[in-house]
Amino acid sequence: MDVFEALYTTRAMRRVKPDPVPLDVQAQIIDAAVRAPSGGNGQGWRFLLVDDPEVIKKIAPLYQDCVRQLWATAYADRYQAALADPEAPASKIMMKMVSSVQWVADNFETIPLLLFGFIRGDTSGGSIWPALWNAQLAARAHGVGSAPTAALNFFHPDETYEILGVPKDENWQMAAMITMGYPKGTWGVASRRPAHEVSYRNRWGSDTGFEINEPMWPGSN
Amino acid sequence: MDVFEALYTTRAMRRVKPDPVPLDVQAQIIDAAVRAPSGGNGQGWRFLLVDDPEVIKKIAPLYQDCVRQLWATAYADRYQAALADPEAPASKIMMKMVSSVQWVADNFETIPLLLFGFIRGDTSGGSIWPALWNAQLAARAHGVGSAPTAALNFFHPDETYEILGVPKDENWQMAAMITMGYPKGTWGVASRRPAHEVSYRNRWGSDTGFEINEPMWPGSN
Repeated sequence: MDVFEALYTTRAMRRVKPDPVPLDVQAQIIDAAVRAPSGGNGQGWRFLLVDDPEVIKKIAPLYQDCVRQLWATAYADRYQAALADPEAPASKIMMKMVSSVQWVADNFETIPLLLFGFIRGDTSGGSIWPALWNAQLAARAHGVGSAPTAALNFFHPDETYEILGVPKDENWQMAAMITMGYPKGTWGVASRRPAHEVSYRNRWGSDTGFEINEPMWPGSN
Repeated sequence: MDVFEALYTTRAMRRVKPDPVPLDVQAQIIDAAVRAPSGGNGQGWRFLLVDDPEVIKKIAPLYQDCVRQLWATAYADRYQAALADPEAPASKIMMKMVSSVQWVADNFETIPLLLFGFIRGDTSGGSIWPALWNAQLAARAHGVGSAPTAALNFFHPDETYEILGVPKDENWQMAAMITMGYPKGTWGVASRRPAHEVSYRNRWGSDTGFEINEPMWPGSN
């Protein structure tokens, strides 16, 4: 697969089939992850793959509670606004996300693979997120969909660490849980606010000198 | 370029030529960046490209001071250990990094392009680092080398914000400065601790079921 196809079509794929992800694909996902940079090349990361249905079953109620709390806290305003004006474009985007996140909660026990990323000695995220994103890009190249969430970190870190056996005295921080599996839907380019609207040249607020009205990847049309 | 070539060979490339990076390549770097995921698809990011030699000249002494401080603080132990036992493998890795970071400090005014990434409303880094890493991968695909640093954030954020004109009252946080340019050296796969040594299955400490002794990309040999 061309690198730009991967960069342009790796979007959150939350609805996945229960089919297992083969071991060699999982191996490449982690092998690609460790190629990422980390501060001072510290590589202070750990990756935990979960495919045991019994473990997934234990995490399910925690994640389901996270999602209930998300709609009531961090996303409450956007959720209520979407319910109040369902035809607005922002409402449609919001309800699409709500629906796919809710699908994960409702079908958690059917998800074939979870990838947890842990880090220590990094407060910026710069030493774990490139690795996790590499894992998602490598998964994409093998046709595996993925979606990261930090909800467990926020609402149920202790219970999650307990289930996964994370040592309490070693300062490991969970960065994210990434759900993985073969997608039910189709790949495509996620719509985004155009690059020139979120970038500047030489000084904050100055024009970049380019305008990008269509994604710069030919397969997007 | 194949996606795995990009994932496996995008390493910190600090020594770059002064040749400018064409505008269309810069545009694709930012267009690839905005394809990345962000929490709740918030896209609360800004990208600032700097190629004006006058601006680069103002940032140079700040970065040079950062590097002086890095060797004396965060990297002091590893630096002293490397000086004390220069033949140890860890010392060689450390001195190679010291040498390339010092090259950036000493030649800062010759670097053709800087990319600054800013975010607000994100404390985990998960809403800016995938975008910045996409920028580096897209740059790689165009033959442009890059290396991120958070040193300015730590040691000289206020002076940097002042030079770049970042508004003080909008809560923007600089995630990193990425130096960019056509590399003087050659691309290659960075050596890393093997994936199976930093990953587990189903429970912390358990074996993953795979062993990866060579990078899983054929071009690495």
